[in-house]
Amino acid sequence: QERVRSIIETRLVQRVIIFVIVVNAVTIGCETSSYLMERMGGFLHAVDRIALTVFTVEIAARLYAYRGAFFKDPWNWFDAVIVAIALVPASGPTSVLRALRILRALRLVSAVPSMRRVVNALLAAVPGMASIIGLLVLMIYIAAVIATKLFGEIVPERFDELPRSLFTLFQIMTGDDWGNVAQEVMSEKPWAWLFFIAYILMSTFVALNLFIAVVVNAMND
Amino acid sequence: QERVRSIIETRLVQRVIIFVIVVNAVTIGCETSSYLMERMGGFLHAVDRIALTVFTVEIAARLYAYRGAFFKDPWNWFDAVIVAIALVPASGPTSVLRALRILRALRLVSAVPSMRRVVNALLAAVPGMASIIGLLVLMIYIAAVIATKLFGEIVPERFDELPRSLFTLFQIMTGDDWGNVAQEVMSEKPWAWLFFIAYILMSTFVALNLFIAVVVNAMND
Amino acid sequence: QERVRSIIETRLVQRVIIFVIVVNAVTIGCETSSYLMERMGGFLHAVDRIALTVFTVEIAARLYAYRGAFFKDPWNWFDAVIVAIALVPASGPTSVLRALRILRALRLVSAVPSMRRVVNALLAAVPGMASIIGLLVLMIYIAAVIATKLFGEIVPERFDELPRSLFTLFQIMTGDDWGNVAQEVMSEKPWAWLFFIAYILMSTFVALNLFIAVVVNAMND
Amino acid sequence: QERVRSIIETRLVQRVIIFVIVVNAVTIGCETSSYLMERMGGFLHAVDRIALTVFTVEIAARLYAYRGAFFKDPWNWFDAVIVAIALVPASGPTSVLRALRILRALRLVSAVPSMRRVVNALLAAVPGMASIIGLLVLMIYIAAVIATKLFGEIVPERFDELPRSLFTLFQIMTGDDWGNVAQEVMSEKPWAWLFFIAYILMSTFVALNLFIAVVVNAMND
Ligand code: NA
Ligand code: NA
Repeated sequence: QERVRSIIETRLVQRVIIFVIVVNAVTIGCETSSYLMERMGGFLHAVDRIALTVFTVEIAARLYAYRGAFFKDPWNWFDAVIVAIALVPASGPTSVLRALRILRALRLVSAVPSMRRVVNALLAAVPGMASIIGLLVLMIYIAAVIATKLFGEIVPERFDELPRSLFTLFQIMTGDDWGNVAQEVMSEKPWAWLFFIAYILMSTFVALNLFIAVVVNAMND
Repeated sequence: QERVRSIIETRLVQRVIIFVIVVNAVTIGCETSSYLMERMGGFLHAVDRIALTVFTVEIAARLYAYRGAFFKDPWNWFDAVIVAIALVPASGPTSVLRALRILRALRLVSAVPSMRRVVNALLAAVPGMASIIGLLVLMIYIAAVIATKLFGEIVPERFDELPRSLFTLFQIMTGDDWGNVAQEVMSEKPWAWLFFIAYILMSTFVALNLFIAVVVNAMND
Repeated sequence: QERVRSIIETRLVQRVIIFVIVVNAVTIGCETSSYLMERMGGFLHAVDRIALTVFTVEIAARLYAYRGAFFKDPWNWFDAVIVAIALVPASGPTSVLRALRILRALRLVSAVPSMRRVVNALLAAVPGMASIIGLLVLMIYIAAVIATKLFGEIVPERFDELPRSLFTLFQIMTGDDWGNVAQEVMSEKPWAWLFFIAYILMSTFVALNLFIAVVVNAMND
Repeated sequence: QERVRSIIETRLVQRVIIFVIVVNAVTIGCETSSYLMERMGGFLHAVDRIALTVFTVEIAARLYAYRGAFFKDPWNWFDAVIVAIALVPASGPTSVLRALRILRALRLVSAVPSMRRVVNALLAAVPGMASIIGLLVLMIYIAAVIATKLFGEIVPERFDELPRSLFTLFQIMTGDDWGNVAQEVMSEKPWAWLFFIAYILMSTFVALNLFIAVVVNAMND
């Protein structure tokens, strides 16, 4: 057990793992190309199997080496789940599971210490933003209910049901094409500019303060 | 009176209120769906009545418990107005009042202390920005008057009257689709790029400084 | 002379001036509406004449009161030029000068001390940004020359001449509709994504640093 | 050798060089105009030749004056490569090399000390951002593989091959026209909003933190 641990922790083994992750990410990318699949599909699949074997062996070795301690580090959970997904036989009509194989490339984050630190820092920023995010979600929800009731019959392709209104208002918050959406509505209800401009000002102001919260937190560290 | 106050301030009562607010927000959302209204419309309306009753009783209890002090906290005004709006019978041709019932969900802000603090902080930032906001409004107004006079006859669907020009220039300030608007004008008045680029540079610069003012204020706290 | 100065500097006179500026800004705005011009055009013109008289008298009084010192404050130059523009008879075919009358509303900036401070602060930020702005202008110019030579014949409505390329690249830098512009070019020159993505990354990065320079300067004050 | 160095370092010589760079940048810009080329093409070419001669002589003089030390400053490499490109005879079918002649204008950056400092500062910020940039690239790559597999057959003009998906997802990250792309996909796979909104939230959040990293680094200096 001790010996397995010391082997896993050598620089060489960790570099090999990183190398396998990168190569595997590239081959999964190549598999999207029908041109490459015709010419070297067998090779790509073989690399994929080898990579999966390497990952499985590595996870098993870490599980054997650290036992219970393995499950204390959330990054180990992360690695284990990603490999487990890949081991599920992706039969059936849905190709979604096959497409998610590329998530294995995310193992790069857990394998490279500097990226792991970056993601840890990003995640650490989230709880401090919970109240502002909650406020933003509340605002979008309220605006979506109002928009569905008031504009649902005028512009049904944007506001016919609550889910679509939520999507449209998220899009408007990002500033994408909001002028056209507003003008479609305003051609029937000229006062609708009030709704859209109020929504943009308020959501932008809250998003701006979300941003400031993140910056101020980052400064204090 | 003392007893009513101590009951209102228990954790349990406050959690019940928050629960009712959330449930009511969800049912008002469900009411936008004709599919759900057909199947469980009666249930949704019943929940809505119960929630409104709970809110009315709670406001009345708080009014009774705190008397004059009730009106010193602006959040109480906020709660009272929102519940009062809901009690107004929404008859007549306009469905706007019915749509505004969802504003009740905003009571979540006054009921959850951390959200209340966030909104207090957001509002506290506004007065310090008054001069820059005034400058921005002045710039948009001046640009809208100029645009109406110079471009109103060329692109009437954007600049025919002052209100529409104000809308278009607000849209341009957010960066949405401004290239197309400018090119429509430039096809007749080739020098119009000068107006649009000057407007974008100036409004962005002022908006940027508005942003900085907020950040700097936030830093000092 | 002393007496004139003491009269000008009273709070009352300054408030009257601000009031006249605001009223005049509103009437010039109303003049853009043919509906209002038909009904109260005579009144609007009368207000405009009175306002212009007030401004002219006030400038003359200040000139008389402060003599040489008048020209030491750039804000006085600003006021004098704006009023002088309004006095020029706007005959001839061009309506541009008439449209620029609304610039008088900018006198609000010089008349309200807090807005004057904001604009002074904004202007004070510019010299420190000169090098980064110069770099940004240089980048846009270089990109425009390259784009004109390489894409001018493919998409002439975007890149046929240097001025149009400059406009298009400014538009791309603001992120407006760049995907469509790039795809038009890429339908003929598939490698053009390299140009557009490099340009967006570089110009955004420089603009970001321009922004940081402004923030850091603001923080140090 | 000493004398050559002292001549190069005089203010006058450096100003002349800057002047030649600016003039040459303008003439290369003028060469894009067929109108100007017809009228003064010979003159523009003559100026171009003279400028190139001046640059070559100056680089040669600096090489002679500083010898080995010349190659220690990366800005000298920069100048040498730019002039070398210009000396390559641009024959053949490709006009790309001729278009790149304008890169000579970048010599302005190395010739003006304040711009050189700005660019040095910009470049110094890059290494500290390597991990976050790596994470962003990884996210775009993973999203592009998933999008190609899931949406490639539905919207081939956006996601048919990995390179096009990468382009589309970069465009979506900049917020340009993403609503339309998402809606095209959603018309066949209604759950696709999940992919797009998750991608926008995550990429924006990481880009925001990239931004913060740059600001915090700049603050510490
Ligand atoms: Na757009
Ligand atoms: Na946009």
